[in-house]
Amino acid sequence: MLITELAQLCDATPRGGDTSISLQSAADIMSARPHQVTVLSDGKYKKYLKGCQASACFIAEALIDGDVPAGLTLLVCKDPEMSFLSAVKALHPEPVLDRQVSRQAAIADTAKLGSNVLIGPFASIGQHSIVGAGSTVDAGARIGNHVSIGTNCRIHPNAVIYDNTVLGDNVIIHSGSIIGADGFGYKYRDNQHVKVPHVGNVIIEDNVEIGANTCIDRGALGSTRIGWGSKIDNLVQLGHNNTVGKNVIVCGQCGISGSCEIGDGAILAGSVGVADHVKIGTRAVVMARSGVSQDIEPGSQVWGSPAKDRKMAWRELAALAKLPELMQKIKQFESRLSKLEE
Amino acid sequence: MLITELAQLCDATPRGGDTSISLQSAADIMSARPHQVTVLSDGKYKKYLKGCQASACFIAEALIDGDVPAGLTLLVCKDPEMSFLSAVKALHPEPVLDRQVSRQAAIADTAKLGSNVLIGPFASIGQHSIVGAGSTVDAGARIGNHVSIGTNCRIHPNAVIYDNTVLGDNVIIHSGSIIGADGFGYKYRDNQHVKVPHVGNVIIEDNVEIGANTCIDRGALGSTRIGWGSKIDNLVQLGHNNTVGKNVIVCGQCGISGSCEIGDGAILAGSVGVADHVKIGTRAVVMARSGVSQDIEPGSQVWGSPAKDRKMAWRELAALAKLPELMQKIKQFESRLSKLEE
Amino acid sequence: MLITELAQLCDATPRGGDTSISLQSAADIMSARPHQVTVLSDGKYKKYLKGCQASACFIAEALIDGDVPAGLTLLVCKDPEMSFLSAVKALHPEPVLDRQVSRQAAIADTAKLGSNVLIGPFASIGQHSIVGAGSTVDAGARIGNHVSIGTNCRIHPNAVIYDNTVLGDNVIIHSGSIIGADGFGYKYRDNQHVKVPHVGNVIIEDNVEIGANTCIDRGALGSTRIGWGSKIDNLVQLGHNNTVGKNVIVCGQCGISGSCEIGDGAILAGSVGVADHVKIGTRAVVMARSGVSQDIEPGSQVWGSPAKDRKMAWRELAALAKLPELMQKIKQFESRLSKLEE
Repeated sequence: MLITELAQLCDATPRGGDTSISLQSAADIMSARPHQVTVLSDGKYKKYLKGCQASACFIAEALIDGDVPAGLTLLVCKDPEMSFLSAVKALHPEPVLDRQVSRQAAIADTAKLGSNVLIGPFASIGQHSIVGAGSTVDAGARIGNHVSIGTNCRIHPNAVIYDNTVLGDNVIIHSGSIIGADGFGYKYRDNQHVKVPHVGNVIIEDNVEIGANTCIDRGALGSTRIGWGSKIDNLVQLGHNNTVGKNVIVCGQCGISGSCEIGDGAILAGSVGVADHVKIGTRAVVMARSGVSQDIEPGSQVWGSPAKDRKMAWRELAALAKLPELMQKIKQFESRLSKLEE
Repeated sequence: MLITELAQLCDATPRGGDTSISLQSAADIMSARPHQVTVLSDGKYKKYLKGCQASACFIAEALIDGDVPAGLTLLVCKDPEMSFLSAVKALHPEPVLDRQVSRQAAIADTAKLGSNVLIGPFASIGQHSIVGAGSTVDAGARIGNHVSIGTNCRIHPNAVIYDNTVLGDNVIIHSGSIIGADGFGYKYRDNQHVKVPHVGNVIIEDNVEIGANTCIDRGALGSTRIGWGSKIDNLVQLGHNNTVGKNVIVCGQCGISGSCEIGDGAILAGSVGVADHVKIGTRAVVMARSGVSQDIEPGSQVWGSPAKDRKMAWRELAALAKLPELMQKIKQFESRLSKLEE
Repeated sequence: MLITELAQLCDATPRGGDTSISLQSAADIMSARPHQVTVLSDGKYKKYLKGCQASACFIAEALIDGDVPAGLTLLVCKDPEMSFLSAVKALHPEPVLDRQVSRQAAIADTAKLGSNVLIGPFASIGQHSIVGAGSTVDAGARIGNHVSIGTNCRIHPNAVIYDNTVLGDNVIIHSGSIIGADGFGYKYRDNQHVKVPHVGNVIIEDNVEIGANTCIDRGALGSTRIGWGSKIDNLVQLGHNNTVGKNVIVCGQCGISGSCEIGDGAILAGSVGVADHVKIGTRAVVMARSGVSQDIEPGSQVWGSPAKDRKMAWRELAALAKLPELMQKIKQFESRLSKLEE
């Protein structure tokens, strides 16, 4: 694709360089080579522009200054990140999949498949389940009974969806994720843990993406729910009866116990843990590796284990770093005091 | 099912309301609607009784006081949690599965299947393996060679059981769990990590339940063992040669390195880590996100990383919260001391 | 195998006992019985030698002292760990697998299989993928399109390898691991998280072993790379565009965000977290449960969250333990000061 063509496609204005060059792929600014397009959207990387070997670079007007290599066409635009994202898609188109139902799949006689679905080999779909139009259930994925999958979903290989799960449209579930397994609940009676039946389900709204090897447990009663547009990373544990709002971000290896409410737009960074029945307010940010045991105010930023206001936690941390030294000083005080008291 | 019928089934005595109402399902006290049964077992939720819209509610005599809605039948019983649990089972019966061996499964010629087993599509069972009567090996699950599975076990879809694993009776393994992979052991020689052969196995006793995407590694020599009635949650890592006692609770995302001994009835809350060769005493409780690097006394409660006595850890935490303020005070001391010394 | 034979095979010299005894298996020194061989390589276990019931024991000359049971043949050698490792292999040979392509596998017409491969039932191999000679793709494993697998690799059951992944020779991938899923990247625009296309791949060099249920995400652009001979344990999250060096050890449940560089020979103990864009120097050691947010010097040992020099972190920890007591002391100072000031 010529630079001029890409510029037009991605709402950018070419400046300088040779716009008749053909672009073949996209790369980051540090490793880009001729015939590649890159992006400069973060001031931190400005220093790499001078030596950039790409043929074209998306950039906002405000970031342009100083030397630009002669061979580099700047693609000036309002939102370089989004323009670059479009460029990546254009230069690296998704492979066209062969949209058919594999003869090596196992589809229950009462299951219903929409038009244009792709069912991979060794995928199995249980009784009374529905796969919406344009959705993919890839190789080895297991869809239980009475499952409803919306349109244009993609269930990657070897994912498992237990009975009664409901998925909206445009949902992506990566490989190895387990949606709807029983929650972890027992009552201890007569020297044994008696299993609490889990008769609820999992409901996942439209445009949710769930990473690889993540577990989302069904409700004991009622549903575990993931709201519209939320994104869950890999190896996350989401226990029974949690309610995750819209556009929530849950990073890798987070663990959310059960019956929690995560507000719209909240962000849980990597490896955050959340205790039972906790409410995390809208747009709150829980920083990496924090342990949340109490409700978090909307919009607040917390850190630590137990998590508290970020600034307060850091002040404590800074104080702790000075503590060994402080202890020396206090010993000296003691002797100075004793001397005065003599 | 009529309220009277359910009361009888669940060892409860109906009081008030209209006991001829038919119950359709179970729900928690906050969301229950007419024709649903609920439970009040925790004093914290007492305030919800007044406005409860359920048709029936299990409750212990001791918790009854104040207003009860006119339309609500109290189901008075000794153990509301267990009575409710029975009610949930009665109102939400498990689906009856079609107990047959799928023609799309791969069963080795030397494998032995007990009566009434269910083998799902694309399940595979290796040479010389045994599946006991009434057990289920669901879609896509892989049972290796020389594996022994007891009676009435349930192996959920896409779980993997490596060679030589032994499972007792009534064992549940959720989807994506990997039982018996090699432990993580190497010897560093001549600039490379040489793999330590893992020739042991995993032994899981009766009535154990293992969550989704959990990993239990085989012993290097000898066995990794999970004792009678223990319950392991999702995404847990249990390393080689660990011995987990009876009725142990291991919550989600815990990691137990290797060669540890976890005593009977111990509880490991979420995301706990345990170092190599550590012993955790019977009925000890390790609180969430703790890191255990030394032996834990039976019956003790520990927290923190490294884990220590819970109260001691909290005292330190409380002190740390006051440290920034304390540092201000100490600065003042210094000037007061200096003034006195002049 | 006779003791004499095993000694010769494993570069050891028999001393004492009855070397004509036949050995049947290997065990650790505490549990070994007659007709078993064991090893004593760590001085900590020396006390067990006296009561050892094994028929033979690998040992270095330097560790021999005091009583040796009459029935025990010492197998004196330079490197008891490696000699024992050879013995374990000899006494517990790996089962010979039936090296054939299952008729129940799904192999794309454009896929190429080398000689002597083993493809298990319900394994599927996508278009244009290559499986090198002597490699195993076990039951239910999914190999995407355009994947290249070297020689003598072993892909365990139900592992998933996404499109375009490249594996070197002698790579082991345990069950449930997901190689090459999309990284976790979004841009927030117009009230939604827009998915960043991930068009890179994963490259795994020779002699790498990856545990069970581990996730290694593909690069957004370019590759996520695991260097020669590195060993990754179970349930590890390795984000997009990380570069892991040679002979690196990553223990269970570690989480490495993205675009990090882990130097050759570095060791990450269990449950370590690493933030985006961090560099960990060659042969650095990050101790268990640490959270690394800044670059780590080569050869250094760090601990804590945020991770700092191990000794410094421990000093702080020791000081913290004394803090509650210190606070009492400071109260007394205050009254002593006030008295002096009167």
